[in-house]
Amino acid sequence: MTFLEALKRVLVGRPFETESLKRTPLRRLVALGKVSSNALSSVAYAPDEILLTLAIAGMSAIHFSPLVGAAVMVVMFVIIASYRQSVKAYPGGGGDYIIASTNLGPRAGTTAAAALLIDFVLTVAVSMSAAAHYLVAALPQLQGHRGEIAAWGVALLAFASLRGLGRSRWAQMLPTYLFVAGVLFMLVVGSILAVTGQLGQAPSADFTIAPQAGFEEGLTGFFGALLILRAFSTGSAALTGIEAPQSSVPDMAPPRAKNAASVLVWLGILAAVLTLGTLFLAEATNMRLVEFPHESLQLDGGPIPEGYFQIPVLGQLAMAVFGSGTFGFIAILVLTIWVLWTAGASAFKSFPFLASLLAVDGYLPRQLRTRGDRLGYSNGIAALGIAAIVLVLAFDAHLPGLIQMYVVGVFVAFTLSQLGMLGHWKRRYVQTPSRPARAKIVRSRLLNLVGFVLSAAVLVVVLITKFVHGAWLAVAAIGLLYLIMFSLHRHYEAVDRELAIDPNAEAKALPARVHALILVSSVRKPVLRALAFARASRPSKLDAIVVDTEEERTQRTIEKWNELRIPVPLTVLASPYREVAPPLLDYIKGIKRDSPRDLVVVYVPEYVVGRWWEQLVHNQTALRIKARLHFEPGVVVASVPWQLSADTHGRALFDNDFGTTPPTDPSKDPQ
Amino acid sequence: MTFLEALKRVLVGRPFETESLKRTPLRRLVALGKVSSNALSSVAYAPDEILLTLAIAGMSAIHFSPLVGAAVMVVMFVIIASYRQSVKAYPGGGGDYIIASTNLGPRAGTTAAAALLIDFVLTVAVSMSAAAHYLVAALPQLQGHRGEIAAWGVALLAFASLRGLGRSRWAQMLPTYLFVAGVLFMLVVGSILAVTGQLGQAPSADFTIAPQAGFEEGLTGFFGALLILRAFSTGSAALTGIEAPQSSVPDMAPPRAKNAASVLVWLGILAAVLTLGTLFLAEATNMRLVEFPHESLQLDGGPIPEGYFQIPVLGQLAMAVFGSGTFGFIAILVLTIWVLWTAGASAFKSFPFLASLLAVDGYLPRQLRTRGDRLGYSNGIAALGIAAIVLVLAFDAHLPGLIQMYVVGVFVAFTLSQLGMLGHWKRRYVQTPSRPARAKIVRSRLLNLVGFVLSAAVLVVVLITKFVHGAWLAVAAIGLLYLIMFSLHRHYEAVDRELAIDPNAEAKALPARVHALILVSSVRKPVLRALAFARASRPSKLDAIVVDTEEERTQRTIEKWNELRIPVPLTVLASPYREVAPPLLDYIKGIKRDSPRDLVVVYVPEYVVGRWWEQLVHNQTALRIKARLHFEPGVVVASVPWQLSADTHGRALFDNDFGTTPPTDPSKDPQ
Repeated sequence: MTFLEALKRVLVGRPFETESLKRTPLRRLVALGKVSSNALSSVAYAPDEILLTLAIAGMSAIHFSPLVGAAVMVVMFVIIASYRQSVKAYPGGGGDYIIASTNLGPRAGTTAAAALLIDFVLTVAVSMSAAAHYLVAALPQLQGHRGEIAAWGVALLAFASLRGLGRSRWAQMLPTYLFVAGVLFMLVVGSILAVTGQLGQAPSADFTIAPQAGFEEGLTGFFGALLILRAFSTGSAALTGIEAPQSSVPDMAPPRAKNAASVLVWLGILAAVLTLGTLFLAEATNMRLVEFPHESLQLDGGPIPEGYFQIPVLGQLAMAVFGSGTFGFIAILVLTIWVLWTAGASAFKSFPFLASLLAVDGYLPRQLRTRGDRLGYSNGIAALGIAAIVLVLAFDAHLPGLIQMYVVGVFVAFTLSQLGMLGHWKRRYVQTPSRPARAKIVRSRLLNLVGFVLSAAVLVVVLITKFVHGAWLAVAAIGLLYLIMFSLHRHYEAVDRELAIDPNAEAKALPARVHALILVSSVRKPVLRALAFARASRPSKLDAIVVDTEEERTQRTIEKWNELRIPVPLTVLASPYREVAPPLLDYIKGIKRDSPRDLVVVYVPEYVVGRWWEQLVHNQTALRIKARLHFEPGVVVASVPWQLSADTHGRALFDNDFGTTPPTDPSKDPQ
Repeated sequence: MTFLEALKRVLVGRPFETESLKRTPLRRLVALGKVSSNALSSVAYAPDEILLTLAIAGMSAIHFSPLVGAAVMVVMFVIIASYRQSVKAYPGGGGDYIIASTNLGPRAGTTAAAALLIDFVLTVAVSMSAAAHYLVAALPQLQGHRGEIAAWGVALLAFASLRGLGRSRWAQMLPTYLFVAGVLFMLVVGSILAVTGQLGQAPSADFTIAPQAGFEEGLTGFFGALLILRAFSTGSAALTGIEAPQSSVPDMAPPRAKNAASVLVWLGILAAVLTLGTLFLAEATNMRLVEFPHESLQLDGGPIPEGYFQIPVLGQLAMAVFGSGTFGFIAILVLTIWVLWTAGASAFKSFPFLASLLAVDGYLPRQLRTRGDRLGYSNGIAALGIAAIVLVLAFDAHLPGLIQMYVVGVFVAFTLSQLGMLGHWKRRYVQTPSRPARAKIVRSRLLNLVGFVLSAAVLVVVLITKFVHGAWLAVAAIGLLYLIMFSLHRHYEAVDRELAIDPNAEAKALPARVHALILVSSVRKPVLRALAFARASRPSKLDAIVVDTEEERTQRTIEKWNELRIPVPLTVLASPYREVAPPLLDYIKGIKRDSPRDLVVVYVPEYVVGRWWEQLVHNQTALRIKARLHFEPGVVVASVPWQLSADTHGRALFDNDFGTTPPTDPSKDPQ
């Protein structure tokens, strides 16, 4: 115990007081930096996904990428507009889970929560996989270890969260703003170079893309349209994280709702500029990105070089704009990894927080509701870490696979949240008599309706175009989580019902009589202590019990008992099969049969030794009996421990025997 | 629990009653068959060891084998003669451990016991390794798997012992007598053939033995003499098991001591006839046996065939006498394997029995003293099985390696036992006044003195000639076991001293006052039950405690408490670090400081759920608190369980709440 505790102290640090949770409210600029790392870090992988999906149809298709990006951004602004409604409607805070469950009932709420939980796991998995990708781009000698690097990244994140690292606002704000500044600077420089015709080519510009079977003609016909939809739905990964400002409304400085709404707008503007700018420059530098480079890329009609490693979009852009190995290139990679780490860290806050809300509501195990030593919800952090590591290793940090699941979760939550807002406005409309107020509600409702239709449409598109590519896994995971959460809730409710108190019937009732039993194995001090305690509690009846497992030993016990003239009758229970628990249970059942109103209390004398090997070499009978009695209805087990000091000091350290006068503090002694 | 119990029933069978241990006394012939399997089965490997040790010095040396065998037999008869003294001196039974500890004190006794325990492990390891060797001789396709076969043999033996198989007298007697009859028949037939000049050659007769470096001249000089001593000490493996009749004296029919003494003589005669006969026939059939055939054997000056497998002595004899593959050959192999199995099974009785004696005396963990369901000492059986499997696998069932350890253990026990008898006679001499009786004692003492000198001499020879060959391992094992046993004994003694009752001081003392605490986490039925029980025991002071880990929850608890008007004060303990146990322990320490004579009783309400996953999803706080309080001196923990039926039947199954009238048997209802 003490060794484990010491280890925990070294790893986790000394505990923080609950008081230190209280913090000053967030001003707008701080809030923007703090909550947008998740949404903005998707610039590090969402453009890549659009490009490589379009590349399935070959060289001509990739020129559609800015168009697809623009469509994604349109959807984003609609959703942001509807989230501004939610923020104003729930200024006390409330994520998609609360909005959905308040307005649509627990089933929708649980579904939204399940989707969000899956989402947070994927935020971590995707962020760390992308970070591993950028790290390998910076340090080519790490090639071939992306899965492990990403898994270690997750483990490090979990550890940092357990220690409560990165809780300061600067740690959350700085990487976001630096990343935005760095990428913006690159986009501006790149655009100037492009306009002046001085922009270099991307390192992959010389390759040609071989279209996959069925797309030899480029993006034409039904399948061409479907592929554009697929690219659009994959690119929707850029929208992950825009729900974050909504749940941090309570932390904002007043006017909370207004500040949160403006944070949302600024978040959208930054995301749009970065995403579209990146796609534009990728097009300008003739970047070629495919899912499997060695299968789909060609160089002068032949295969590409053996060791070719496909650097992600921001990395290739930095090479084209600043040149490979320059300070600018390294800076972009470092900032990208840092913002991805921060996005992962934010999920390590959101997941345990949502899990604790769900645990309080009885949808997840109770263990998730308690804060650990450093104020993080330790169990939730551990659960998230394990789930993300499993995902990262299962997909070997391959982003296109993970993204498919990600988008499903995000849009399930969006859709349910918007639907919830529709319900909210409907109720508000009914409750509101004044006409101008009603008109405002109608406008808000219309906005949420558009948001709902659009996000539902995207969800349908995602499910249609990517079901077999991995979306089914997300659907299955959400469904499974939903089932688990619902069964748990039913179980907790049943327990609560059973344990609830009926004030009239039972509040002050007392058991009729107490029948006390003392379990005797050998007549030594612990037995006397148990006896003394049992007699002090004045039971209606008091029996000492010895189970006859060994004739000789039983005989010795009886003799000793009589010799000491202990004024309590000693009952010997026969045990033909040398067991202790069954004869005792039979005896107790007999008592309960004869006098059903009696409460049976079994006093178990135990001695406690200090070291683990000492514990091993003493009979574990007491432990086993306690375990068996635990499941016996109407039986109270009183364990009377005797703390041994034998072997350690040669004499009793804790001499608390009742007969002797206990040591008193000499300074308090009146003598 | 129930699944494990069912599994145990299927594997082990239903329990036997303790009563069935009582058995009718053994008559002489039955006793001889029952106790001599261990000693006589050594004919299956001891001659081999003599032959292959001598073979180190080449062809000429192996002719010394009958001489070495005869020397071993002389030692055996001396030791048997001295054991006859022990049997008469201890007609109540008493193995080497009891004789050594009674007469020489606990240190010698513990050493003898350690040696014997190591011995029994080696009996099993050697018997199963030899059996595996014979099995491979019978089924050549098993070659190369001797280690695994022997390990499986040990496992099967352990399993059979746990099930209590082979407890009938026939199962112990039959294989011994059949083995003796079979080998005797072979020896007689072989001798007749030899005398008439019709005896065939052993399958290894055509080989020549290349002497090892230093022995090119055969058995000459100092090293020659040393090698003969080595062969002698290795051959002393034939003496293992002759101590067995001594410990079964109490089972004999009267006159016990006399019967046991005559069993010893007959055992010696049979062992001598079989061992010497085997060595004689091996010589007559020109058998060549070496430790590593492919290194030391030659055929016509060149290497022996690639796949040559060295069949052990009894197998080669059966081939020479009856012919390979004949019924006689197969019968000898089968009987040999059977008697080796029986010898192993006997060790699975002796080891756990000795271990239980040692456990009763406090030299081994208490768990070894209890009989299992089928009356075997299950823990001892398991310990022996594991130790023997480790040995067999470590030596890959290579007999020459194992035998070295075996002999050391046997002779340490012999020597200490004889020394103990010397002490015994000395005391008897002093106590005996009459001259003729004294003369008898002097004679007995002389016999034991010879026995002591001879076995000590053999021990010294063994240690000198084989220390580096493996004897050191036995010495180390005995030493280690001795240390463990002594530390354990010291520990148990210290515990006993500490727990012993001083009848004058404390037998009937009662604690001054009882201060009861009830741990409240939420105000539900279990708390009310704990409260009812605590009040029923009428403590001097009663407090309800709530630890404030979550402000909101604590507030709810307080409100509910007041609402129900529970007439017990509710104390709220602050917990800045959200822990439950530390504030509680601080509070208890405060009570103990203020009124040191008070007994503190903590009532812990608990609810017990039925299924493992239900157990997982409920807070384990109660368990953790109980574990912490267990180590706190002067605190009694009363666990008040509430058996939940939630989820299983939708309503309480065990409705034992005190307020409602419990269900009564309608047949007993007077209405």
